[in-house]
Amino acid sequence: MARVLTPRAEDFPRWYQDLIAKAKLADNGPVRGTMVIRPAGYAIWERMQAEMDARIKAAGAENAYFPLFIPESYLKREAEHVEGFSPELAVVTHGGGKQLAEPVVVRPTSETVIGEFMAKWIDSYRDLPLLLNQWANVVRWELRPRIFLRTSEFLWQEGHTAHATREDARAYARRILHEAYEDLMVNVLGIPVVVGLKTARERFAGATATYTCEGMMGDGKALQMGTSHELGQNFAKAFDISYSSAEGGREHAWTTSWGTSTRMLGGLIMCHGDDNGLRVPPKLAPVQAYVMIVKDGDGVSEAAAKLRDALRDAGVRVALDDRTDTAFGRRAVDAELRGYPVRVEVGPRDLAAGNAVVVRRTDGSKAPTPVADVVGAVLAALEADQRALHDQALEFRRSRTVEVSTLAEAIEASAAGWAMVPWSAVGVPGEAEANAQGVTVRCLLRADGSVPDSEDEPDLVAILARAY
Amino acid sequence: MARVLTPRAEDFPRWYQDLIAKAKLADNGPVRGTMVIRPAGYAIWERMQAEMDARIKAAGAENAYFPLFIPESYLKREAEHVEGFSPELAVVTHGGGKQLAEPVVVRPTSETVIGEFMAKWIDSYRDLPLLLNQWANVVRWELRPRIFLRTSEFLWQEGHTAHATREDARAYARRILHEAYEDLMVNVLGIPVVVGLKTARERFAGATATYTCEGMMGDGKALQMGTSHELGQNFAKAFDISYSSAEGGREHAWTTSWGTSTRMLGGLIMCHGDDNGLRVPPKLAPVQAYVMIVKDGDGVSEAAAKLRDALRDAGVRVALDDRTDTAFGRRAVDAELRGYPVRVEVGPRDLAAGNAVVVRRTDGSKAPTPVADVVGAVLAALEADQRALHDQALEFRRSRTVEVSTLAEAIEASAAGWAMVPWSAVGVPGEAEANAQGVTVRCLLRADGSVPDSEDEPDLVAILARAY
Repeated sequence: MARVLTPRAEDFPRWYQDLIAKAKLADNGPVRGTMVIRPAGYAIWERMQAEMDARIKAAGAENAYFPLFIPESYLKREAEHVEGFSPELAVVTHGGGKQLAEPVVVRPTSETVIGEFMAKWIDSYRDLPLLLNQWANVVRWELRPRIFLRTSEFLWQEGHTAHATREDARAYARRILHEAYEDLMVNVLGIPVVVGLKTARERFAGATATYTCEGMMGDGKALQMGTSHELGQNFAKAFDISYSSAEGGREHAWTTSWGTSTRMLGGLIMCHGDDNGLRVPPKLAPVQAYVMIVKDGDGVSEAAAKLRDALRDAGVRVALDDRTDTAFGRRAVDAELRGYPVRVEVGPRDLAAGNAVVVRRTDGSKAPTPVADVVGAVLAALEADQRALHDQALEFRRSRTVEVSTLAEAIEASAAGWAMVPWSAVGVPGEAEANAQGVTVRCLLRADGSVPDSEDEPDLVAILARAY
Repeated sequence: MARVLTPRAEDFPRWYQDLIAKAKLADNGPVRGTMVIRPAGYAIWERMQAEMDARIKAAGAENAYFPLFIPESYLKREAEHVEGFSPELAVVTHGGGKQLAEPVVVRPTSETVIGEFMAKWIDSYRDLPLLLNQWANVVRWELRPRIFLRTSEFLWQEGHTAHATREDARAYARRILHEAYEDLMVNVLGIPVVVGLKTARERFAGATATYTCEGMMGDGKALQMGTSHELGQNFAKAFDISYSSAEGGREHAWTTSWGTSTRMLGGLIMCHGDDNGLRVPPKLAPVQAYVMIVKDGDGVSEAAAKLRDALRDAGVRVALDDRTDTAFGRRAVDAELRGYPVRVEVGPRDLAAGNAVVVRRTDGSKAPTPVADVVGAVLAALEADQRALHDQALEFRRSRTVEVSTLAEAIEASAAGWAMVPWSAVGVPGEAEANAQGVTVRCLLRADGSVPDSEDEPDLVAILARAY
């Protein structure tokens, strides 16, 4: 078989770009750093959105929509926030044919404008917690863009909540972290993320604590796949988000924000992709079973259509490929590239023996299967391969993670994977030293793997790695 | 009962603004002309999106996403298009802290950037038709903004398709018009839109034909609620969207575009709202049945929760209001404002007699109903009131539409509603005269009510009205 993609071992970044182009997931946009998400890529994003949206709603948040344009002055109200985002802003200076009196920025994130409205909407403790989410595009000018991973415009959800107490804010930021983000990534995307606390240096601009989900990619590097922030009272004070308490006093609220984006598509590719293309976990896949007519022949079309219908009736997301005017080999290569979990190949020869061929993308196995048994075989494959992809990724992560005791060892080990090292052996100066060599502290964990409240807790473990 | 809203008859625009504010549907954003869609408004929009998205997918189109930022030069390639949109553009001149070499515009619509990519993706006739849709925000600087109706930023879907022949493009533009737009508006939104052809003067900038769905609002004015355009080969030539035909030649494609937006929320309010607030048609309503605990008492909470569960099990979208620390009267007023189709009021007195009270928003009727019969009564009310809202709107439209024979009569009749007048009595000069008096030709119809192919057909009828 001709080589379709640059092999991962040869040039991982090139493989990534090749895969995105050949599977028709996305293109570069005409304005530097922007992207066009093509139907094959967008269908996966829609499934991520639906699964995430259901989890966010289950956690009690409601969707809303806030404007794209934010007055420049809003960003300046929270000192760390404006410092963090200023270098990345896109600024609109002209509207409706005239120069604007005050330039407006295209939202890089919406803490400020949402803070302004939370202040209007919240009056008493009865209005809390206020739990909002929005699905939107945001813009952060990127000097070194890479599709899905770092683009000047990307799609995301951003949650913003206000609470009466620090404890309630913290509990909610963590609820989203675990019940929405970690659950989706592990159980739907099949990516065994590590969940931990960011160091002060890696915190979101304006946050008092940032929690993160970190995934290991196929080259051993880390990808930050979602973050949840406690904002303390920083934005509440900057925007006067306050409430009258049950006791009658006026108190500032405690706010959180949290986001996941189209970056997850990049994580999906780099975690599960192989040298033949993408592998999409069955629970996520827009097309779970891809019924292909190998070539026309006696009863082939009818058998393929029947299998399509039977699979659909069994609750499988299914598509039928009857484009016999295109060579089967080319269509099969495309199906591999797209990463459909299961292919069901229907051709005259196998059909004459009463069989169709069930091909599993995860391990490449091909099993001639009696037509009457195909639905059962597909259902079993979908269930097994959801688990298999996760377990492979977990095994890979474990094989590329080493425990070391010094900063120097950790930096060295980061060339090939992740290093776990006592945070006390790194500290703030060690972190700067690692950064200078292209290595970052991805997150801090307790010894038992749980998420710490503060980087000042004793006996924390730091994960050091190179990252996207 | 205290007056909650300015009555419609007293000041319709004020009533509209009051309703949006008091029902907490939306707020004005900080940058002039932008809006914040609050959870109660956004939930309705999400239902519109879901229903529209299903229809668009059923018509074979696939979702994709194109960049927010478009090089200024792209817009200039199609002469009528740039002329139509230039006055409304927002322009980004600075990105990442630097002045941009070429300013970029924030998309007012995406024909140009999508045209550029269609040209890349289409090679042969096998690639046609190419049927794309995107859900996105767009920006058109508004001098006289009004929430949902004309905002500087709004949310919409925009479909863009390319076809091998003019006939195929026309058939698809009309398929979307009828099967997606008209069907959604009439059968879900309950708005009896008139579907027709725009005059050359009212056409989309760059189109060869524009079809429209026009709804009559509660003040007799018209609202354009969705449009579908044939773009001929204008964009195909400007962006070189071409294909090799089965015969081997190279041909330009024929393209279409079509859009509906958050403007539909404004239409919903102005078509069905009354002096007590919004009335949401049951098929659209995010909350179809609103179970309210009137006040606490023996078994009240349990009965209310059981009713909520029974309604949910019957497939009804239901919410439970147990906020007995807020006065019932105030909660009932809020429920009227929000327009929940049915309220189920559960209080100690009625419950002692084995009843709950079923209140229908459409006609205000209140029926004490044995608890065991509530689910059946709710289901019947939802079905009847979906029809009732549509029929009331249709009856109103008929009562405010007059048939006249001269332009002068048509302009006069437009003060109170719609005028139907022979297009031959208006013509291009008459249209300009009407425009000068604030009256527009909303669309052209054949005598039998069907949609004409061209404004040059004989015996066409024009609908003249004032419009939003």
